[in-house]
Amino acid sequence: MSKSNRPEKKSSKAPDSMWGGRFSEAPDAFVERFNASVSFDQRFYAEDIQGSIAHARMLACAGVLSDKEAKQITDALGQIKKQIEAGGFAWSQAREDVHMNIEAALTERIGDVGKKLHTGRSRNDQVATDIRLYLRNRIDDISGLLGQLQMGIVALAEREASTVMPGFTHLQAAQPITFGHHMLAWNEMLERDYARLRDCRARMNLCPLGAAALAGTTYPIDRNMTARELGFDGPTVNSLDSVSDRDFAIEFCAAAGLIMMHLSRMAEELVLWSSQQFDFIDMPDRYCTGSSIMPQKKNPDVPELVRGKSGRVYGHLVALLTLMKSQPLAYNKDNQEDKEPLFDTIDTLRDCLQAFGGLVPALKTRQANMRNAALRGFTTATDLADYLVRKGLPFRDAHEVVGKAVAICLERGVELQDLASSDLQALSPVIDSDAGSVLSLEGSVAARDHIGGTAPKQVLAAASRARSLIEARD
Amino acid sequence: MSKSNRPEKKSSKAPDSMWGGRFSEAPDAFVERFNASVSFDQRFYAEDIQGSIAHARMLACAGVLSDKEAKQITDALGQIKKQIEAGGFAWSQAREDVHMNIEAALTERIGDVGKKLHTGRSRNDQVATDIRLYLRNRIDDISGLLGQLQMGIVALAEREASTVMPGFTHLQAAQPITFGHHMLAWNEMLERDYARLRDCRARMNLCPLGAAALAGTTYPIDRNMTARELGFDGPTVNSLDSVSDRDFAIEFCAAAGLIMMHLSRMAEELVLWSSQQFDFIDMPDRYCTGSSIMPQKKNPDVPELVRGKSGRVYGHLVALLTLMKSQPLAYNKDNQEDKEPLFDTIDTLRDCLQAFGGLVPALKTRQANMRNAALRGFTTATDLADYLVRKGLPFRDAHEVVGKAVAICLERGVELQDLASSDLQALSPVIDSDAGSVLSLEGSVAARDHIGGTAPKQVLAAASRARSLIEARD
Amino acid sequence: MSKSNRPEKKSSKAPDSMWGGRFSEAPDAFVERFNASVSFDQRFYAEDIQGSIAHARMLACAGVLSDKEAKQITDALGQIKKQIEAGGFAWSQAREDVHMNIEAALTERIGDVGKKLHTGRSRNDQVATDIRLYLRNRIDDISGLLGQLQMGIVALAEREASTVMPGFTHLQAAQPITFGHHMLAWNEMLERDYARLRDCRARMNLCPLGAAALAGTTYPIDRNMTARELGFDGPTVNSLDSVSDRDFAIEFCAAAGLIMMHLSRMAEELVLWSSQQFDFIDMPDRYCTGSSIMPQKKNPDVPELVRGKSGRVYGHLVALLTLMKSQPLAYNKDNQEDKEPLFDTIDTLRDCLQAFGGLVPALKTRQANMRNAALRGFTTATDLADYLVRKGLPFRDAHEVVGKAVAICLERGVELQDLASSDLQALSPVIDSDAGSVLSLEGSVAARDHIGGTAPKQVLAAASRARSLIEARD
Amino acid sequence: MSKSNRPEKKSSKAPDSMWGGRFSEAPDAFVERFNASVSFDQRFYAEDIQGSIAHARMLACAGVLSDKEAKQITDALGQIKKQIEAGGFAWSQAREDVHMNIEAALTERIGDVGKKLHTGRSRNDQVATDIRLYLRNRIDDISGLLGQLQMGIVALAEREASTVMPGFTHLQAAQPITFGHHMLAWNEMLERDYARLRDCRARMNLCPLGAAALAGTTYPIDRNMTARELGFDGPTVNSLDSVSDRDFAIEFCAAAGLIMMHLSRMAEELVLWSSQQFDFIDMPDRYCTGSSIMPQKKNPDVPELVRGKSGRVYGHLVALLTLMKSQPLAYNKDNQEDKEPLFDTIDTLRDCLQAFGGLVPALKTRQANMRNAALRGFTTATDLADYLVRKGLPFRDAHEVVGKAVAICLERGVELQDLASSDLQALSPVIDSDAGSVLSLEGSVAARDHIGGTAPKQVLAAASRARSLIEARD
Repeated sequence: MSKSNRPEKKSSKAPDSMWGGRFSEAPDAFVERFNASVSFDQRFYAEDIQGSIAHARMLACAGVLSDKEAKQITDALGQIKKQIEAGGFAWSQAREDVHMNIEAALTERIGDVGKKLHTGRSRNDQVATDIRLYLRNRIDDISGLLGQLQMGIVALAEREASTVMPGFTHLQAAQPITFGHHMLAWNEMLERDYARLRDCRARMNLCPLGAAALAGTTYPIDRNMTARELGFDGPTVNSLDSVSDRDFAIEFCAAAGLIMMHLSRMAEELVLWSSQQFDFIDMPDRYCTGSSIMPQKKNPDVPELVRGKSGRVYGHLVALLTLMKSQPLAYNKDNQEDKEPLFDTIDTLRDCLQAFGGLVPALKTRQANMRNAALRGFTTATDLADYLVRKGLPFRDAHEVVGKAVAICLERGVELQDLASSDLQALSPVIDSDAGSVLSLEGSVAARDHIGGTAPKQVLAAASRARSLIEARD
Repeated sequence: MSKSNRPEKKSSKAPDSMWGGRFSEAPDAFVERFNASVSFDQRFYAEDIQGSIAHARMLACAGVLSDKEAKQITDALGQIKKQIEAGGFAWSQAREDVHMNIEAALTERIGDVGKKLHTGRSRNDQVATDIRLYLRNRIDDISGLLGQLQMGIVALAEREASTVMPGFTHLQAAQPITFGHHMLAWNEMLERDYARLRDCRARMNLCPLGAAALAGTTYPIDRNMTARELGFDGPTVNSLDSVSDRDFAIEFCAAAGLIMMHLSRMAEELVLWSSQQFDFIDMPDRYCTGSSIMPQKKNPDVPELVRGKSGRVYGHLVALLTLMKSQPLAYNKDNQEDKEPLFDTIDTLRDCLQAFGGLVPALKTRQANMRNAALRGFTTATDLADYLVRKGLPFRDAHEVVGKAVAICLERGVELQDLASSDLQALSPVIDSDAGSVLSLEGSVAARDHIGGTAPKQVLAAASRARSLIEARD
Repeated sequence: MSKSNRPEKKSSKAPDSMWGGRFSEAPDAFVERFNASVSFDQRFYAEDIQGSIAHARMLACAGVLSDKEAKQITDALGQIKKQIEAGGFAWSQAREDVHMNIEAALTERIGDVGKKLHTGRSRNDQVATDIRLYLRNRIDDISGLLGQLQMGIVALAEREASTVMPGFTHLQAAQPITFGHHMLAWNEMLERDYARLRDCRARMNLCPLGAAALAGTTYPIDRNMTARELGFDGPTVNSLDSVSDRDFAIEFCAAAGLIMMHLSRMAEELVLWSSQQFDFIDMPDRYCTGSSIMPQKKNPDVPELVRGKSGRVYGHLVALLTLMKSQPLAYNKDNQEDKEPLFDTIDTLRDCLQAFGGLVPALKTRQANMRNAALRGFTTATDLADYLVRKGLPFRDAHEVVGKAVAICLERGVELQDLASSDLQALSPVIDSDAGSVLSLEGSVAARDHIGGTAPKQVLAAASRARSLIEARD
Repeated sequence: MSKSNRPEKKSSKAPDSMWGGRFSEAPDAFVERFNASVSFDQRFYAEDIQGSIAHARMLACAGVLSDKEAKQITDALGQIKKQIEAGGFAWSQAREDVHMNIEAALTERIGDVGKKLHTGRSRNDQVATDIRLYLRNRIDDISGLLGQLQMGIVALAEREASTVMPGFTHLQAAQPITFGHHMLAWNEMLERDYARLRDCRARMNLCPLGAAALAGTTYPIDRNMTARELGFDGPTVNSLDSVSDRDFAIEFCAAAGLIMMHLSRMAEELVLWSSQQFDFIDMPDRYCTGSSIMPQKKNPDVPELVRGKSGRVYGHLVALLTLMKSQPLAYNKDNQEDKEPLFDTIDTLRDCLQAFGGLVPALKTRQANMRNAALRGFTTATDLADYLVRKGLPFRDAHEVVGKAVAICLERGVELQDLASSDLQALSPVIDSDAGSVLSLEGSVAARDHIGGTAPKQVLAAASRARSLIEARD
């Protein structure tokens, strides 16, 4: 192309802009900062470059670029990536975002050929591609951390499969369970979380590249090729939807909200169990901090922070749902606001999973305290009722008899096992001398011997199945 | 059982209660109302009875009930169901919830045998089972309504596959698209929604029955049998988790939030397109209402309400996430609060999908207005830039040339197609007399002829694939 | 008016409608139900009638109605009110809302005169007025319930001003406090809540009547008169804002969210304190329920429900914020969705405040358990550090010395008061034989003797000031 | 103090920690980062130093420090502040937070005296004080920006007090209004926002210093003195509440949520009005950006971003409400999570108010387009109905007549002013030749001549009152 074909040098009004032609004044300085996303979207520079390389190669196959041009572009992009990773890249706010920063650097390096890269695409499909690539990578990281935490939980469950503690409902002692059984409840929550992440990943793994601004492009592009090259399962189906869809971010944040909810429940229990009143577990000092004023304090900071961080993830989910509410198609600038909530959700999940992944295996149980707690609170009352059913009472009547026995104990300040046979027989003549045996903690847990029950052998079997499921993940 | 085996008649303190044995005073009248859930949980009476029948049959197989007892119970439950459906059942607040109302009615009908039904279960696993059965049914209803709406959208897309309108980004005219293409963007959103509902349904389709209060039960229950009988894919894995898990409700509400977000975007567009300024569509009078003061008004109430109802569904999602935050295991009374948000989410989804399912096929397009709008706003400017690229300019330079052409048009108050060849050539000598052809609307849309593009033939092919996917659903 | 002046009888298309003139078909049956609000807005019939009476009187003063017409209207409205309160009013869904139901009933009673009532107003300003009147009344109810709960808390604080318990941070025993002091912390939260309700009430107490549809009206209305008559502080300032503003509902729900947050914190503590592990308080049986399976259970249902209900109020706040996001002015149908979240927030607040208003004064403290808990956990370690400061150590060094003392205690399984003087002196030679005295619980609390401190005399003084503030409310 | 009084040098385990005495291992490296808040709380270093200076002076008055010690401390704190502002302060993550970073720097500068500063306080009351000081300052900034935006709006309202445009309800042309009137609706929203910020500021302006860890302190502190010195209205009332209260952050975020909701509504209108279909306003190029692919685009980025940013602020409100839900008293580590949502809310508000504060005065109206739009859509239909009422028809009948007239116009594709007198008289014989006059736009707006109405003279008067209110702010 001869020089005469080229437009006049752009006025100084919008020096680095890629869209200044029709504008008569440069952006206001405040507006430039307000609009710019480069401070947070530079985070996915690697995915942006990966996408550009795939796009350039496809353009070459399609004959839009020559092979030489494509090579110039992809080589230069590779160098820019290295430059960024070496910390030597000067990000410019005037260039708005990661895309235009990198493209401008490309043109600086290789001249007019660099200006051809954007043929047949728009920032709208480009950012949609980048963010999917980035999130896909992060889901894989998070799934790995989730699996590590689960393995720690399952190992603890196996170690403590027979450790009796009170199971609670309404935070009142309910029935004896084992600590291992409790740990496996935690694992079940996380197992569902893993499955949700997998579903989310599968649903988002389609390539928007080729949707261009909103309607597709007039160039003979090969969308299947770019999709394949970038590891997607195929191209997205509709160009308008491709550039305006942010479902994947919301679905991910909803899954993240559930994970954080689960972690907040575990955190609550860790905080309770660490209190002087429960004293069921001991956390290593390295997971705790002290107080600037009270010399005796050892605070369970890590679970407290994890519990608190549920708030920010819930908030990000609300932010994204609000963001997308009532937006007409296709792309609107509002969508730029999808990134920070998503990124902070990713970071929060990673940190919290890593924190618990380290903490859980380091927990020490105080088995005597757990056992003593289980001996209080009439935790085997249901076993006594079941005993009465076996003796012929309808369950409702058996329940009533035991309720009265408990009332007597409360009056006397004793436990069920402390009542004399005669006391029990006065309540119901079917109670024999063998009733005492059903009141033992070990008998109680061993008797719940079915799938999902708290009997130690069921716990061990369940732990083994759980471990296999985690190990079988790709 | 002889009379002497039976406990004394319970004091009048808690006459209908099933747990009064240890209590020394009846519930406060206000507390009774405050605690009771029967006003809203009677909604799943059918599922409660279905679950009880399966439980009774299993207890008979396990030898806990005799076959005769089981038959008495299941027959009487069938009669109670009919009584409820005939409107002849007197729900009692003193009996707290749907479970105890039905169980008490059973015992009234068949005496002591009725008191045996609750053997080996608790309300904790009972309600968890009921709610899963109920939600599973509602997901199926909603999936059906979603499919109907999608079919209406796809049919409209086919009808309007070639109707040119301006595609918007930032609500500014961007590029010509077809109305059919726009409709298929709507369909894509809903297609993802359908998939999320399927995933949610699959994940929740496990049977908690047998978890009892929290630890399992001492009776020789067969959890696989009840799971099978109730159409579940199997029993849940851990008893504590079974009674404390409300993930399914949250996951459903998150999926519902996305559906409502999508509907709010469609609603926004319907409202915009119905305005005098856009005037792209006409809604039938039967979907609109008037004003009590302004005689000329015809208001798009239905999309406005749907748009507004996104708020309540987002709110319910937040309610449930908040509810579960930091709850220690296992069941807490807080969990009773899961129902109303879930039920209102279900009802809202059904209504909104039905509303749009009727409205969308009844829309009339104003094709001339759409076409005129597409002729304004320089919507083919990108096509002109692409033309320049084909003439040898790098895309960035071509963009700059066309930007300047637009600036001239704005100054003169004309459109690109109104510029003389000489005007264009002054900007770039590569522009020939053939440039005018790329500025036609039909040429522009036809040229975006790849998967996901807006070319009418791509729209028809995409509509056909979409229709097949919907029809292939079970 | 002669018959010939009257329009033709409206077609059967929209029989009860007040806006059918320009419409060619009646609402779809489903749409009629979907649009109708009468099922929930009939709740403010009294305020609607009150507003209509004020409007009619003003129209008479302005000469738009004759005095006789105004009297006919206001008399008939009074009768309709009685009819509604007697349960004899047939609400009609076809008439959409409370306004049109009442107006139609009016016209049925008094004929054409009834049709004149709507002169100079619209449903847009009418509903805005009704809802403000209604909410103003409910804020007054709720403020009263809040005050009652506060009085119960303050009385309990006075009763237990000297009851020592451990104060917690991070749920770890921190320093001794008194139970009365803790109660007054609860009161402070509610005192702020009361002030927020007052601010909300004052800000909303302006009358939108006269804004009409959105622009005001051509009739010679007197907005000051209607405002005065309805107890408002004046008319609203701008007609568009008047019909599109829903700030008052959101501000109220935000204040309600804070109230529920506070109640959830109290609830959490009540649940903790009722556990077998803490055992600090006893709740009356009438505030608790049992278990259908576990005969020994006595569950703190009331605080659990209150804690859970925080979720629905948070959700309603989100619903309303979402609802109003991005709505162009002025009124949109979306706004109809403001009512149900608002109403449920009101109902929830009333119930929860009533529940705690009854429960709190009925709490029994277990003073011995509290005291024993305070004796554990080194709660007077800070007092020992302060002692060292008085002996000349910088605070940071004193903290370090006591930290080491605690480490020794932990190793030996004893409390600080169990250490021998020689042990302490080995850590720091400045420790004298008088150190023991600072380790007593009574000494510790009495020493925090300044405004806001936990010294019993400060607690009594603070309670007295708190009581005066509540009593001084209008 | 002789050397022998000082504790042994702390082990290397927790080198910078101020609480390591009782700990046997240093924090895990990951945990150290996870727990640290210094990366975000250094933002209020100035308030931390201000609070420490006030505390030191009070300790000197109380005789806990000598005057010389106090002076050493306050001088050194002043130097540290300068060092921070000069960028020469090395923040350390190992020192956790802003408080311990500054205190450690103090001790490095002045030795043992620095260790005395923390006497009689805890980080719990310190951070509560800092954050209130910081937020108070930011509320003042934001109130100022709000006032500037309001002044811009009011000036625009005055300039366009007579510019006729269609007022919309349901986004349908409703009645003629003036653009100035519309602007004043915006101002009303912001006027309420200002009042809410004032209320929030007043409610939070109490000083927590002296609450210490949770129970107060044993030193003879003067809480009134520190409160006064820091510009608070007095000390807080209860020590437990003082360290656990985060109401001010939530109340502020709720007020911020309302501000953002209002800005999102303005933004929506700016986007609508900038569309080719409305074309009511022109935004300066410096507030817009272009497209990387479509050369003609000029996008209203600033209002779009503002609209989108409502999401993040709603999200932060939810985050904080979630954070505080169910937290037992007093301070928990969760509370550290209050800061980032609060800070981002502050930053977002400031940016959005600044953005609109610049944009609004720079808007250019397209008066001809507004006027033409008002001439369509039968906007004076209500005026015609009012005319009929003046001729003796009841309002409901007049409404019906005009509705029929509109139906005829729609059939013929004309506006009301195009109908012949005979057409109107056929609908109602009371219509005279003077009817045409009520259909003029100027007549319509001028006729709404009461407080809050759209008559230009009312708009000017309202603008003048609004301006006075803003100017009267302190």
